[in-house]
Amino acid sequence: MSRPMNRRQDNHKISRELFVLTYGALVAQVCKDYEKDEDVNKYLDRMGYDIGIRLVEDFLARSAVRKCRSYSETVDVIAQVAFKMYLGVTPSVSCSKTTENEFFLILDKNPLVDFVEELPAGRCSLCYCNLLCGVIRGALEMVHLAAEVTFVQDRLKGDDVTEIGIIFSKKVEDKKHKRKK
Amino acid sequence: MSRPMNRRQDNHKISRELFVLTYGALVAQVCKDYEKDEDVNKYLDRMGYDIGIRLVEDFLARSAVRKCRSYSETVDVIAQVAFKMYLGVTPSVSCSKTTENEFFLILDKNPLVDFVEELPAGRCSLCYCNLLCGVIRGALEMVHLAAEVTFVQDRLKGDDVTEIGIIFSKKVEDKKHKRKK
Repeated sequence: MSRPMNRRQDNHKISRELFVLTYGALVAQVCKDYEKDEDVNKYLDRMGYDIGIRLVEDFLARSAVRKCRSYSETVDVIAQVAFKMYLGVTPSVSCSKTTENEFFLILDKNPLVDFVEELPAGRCSLCYCNLLCGVIRGALEMVHLAAEVTFVQDRLKGDDVTEIGIIFSKKVEDKKHKRKK
Repeated sequence: MSRPMNRRQDNHKISRELFVLTYGALVAQVCKDYEKDEDVNKYLDRMGYDIGIRLVEDFLARSAVRKCRSYSETVDVIAQVAFKMYLGVTPSVSCSKTTENEFFLILDKNPLVDFVEELPAGRCSLCYCNLLCGVIRGALEMVHLAAEVTFVQDRLKGDDVTEIGIIFSKKVEDKKHKRKK
């Protein structure tokens, strides 16, 4: 019997505060190890990627979502099922007006910064939650969807909301739907 | 209005898998930074302590537990309320047969090692979950209870169960109850 089957019977629900504080400790540690913000961001993204490629199995086993038929459906599942399951919030989703393969997850409230008042001193380019981008990227890759995932806006940097941009590589969908234009 | 009051109205429940994998990334990072297992253990404990002294406010606000009147009651609250709330499991509790101030939390299943098959190569003295000891120690200190908190047994090291030992410093209770002997 596979592990997710066993684990599905457990009580998986926890309060997120210990997670949020542990994540803060992780970011602090990476900041100690890397001087440049961009290196910290890359490293957090990479860590997230490694997590995403493992987490997706758990997600598919427990969410029982079916194969998505479009990028739009995929992003809705990320927002409404995955974010809700793993972070306890549901971002709203918007799509780009100019391209078909670009979407945005908008978080009015980012639970990962619950205990964070502001970015650490001298770390104004830090994408504090960049691990999340990596997690999404890694998980998508495991279901054969290549995507660029980055923070477009961040309340920690003074923006009104926190917004994650997802740009899918067009290949897959282009093949399926051919060009409508 | 204090922050815990605001947050109390939110949905705090999340699935623990993302937390568990993020914790794994944290341990891996600390292992990269410190060569000796004992340094890693100390550092994880220290990180946990910093988390515990912050988490206790959230815990007291949301659990609404009353002031405990004995070490035994305190340990029961840690096991039945705090572990349940933050890790989704309830350890069983036992107390030392020889001293009044020593207790054990026994975890048949340790959720923090859900994705961990074994200790990393060459890390046989690593207390993988030592952050938890620090969290408990920090949280207890904030309610004026000094304690030593350490792993007594660990399934990752081949023991049958995972067991956390809590030894309270006798001062406080000795003053209250005086010596019965």
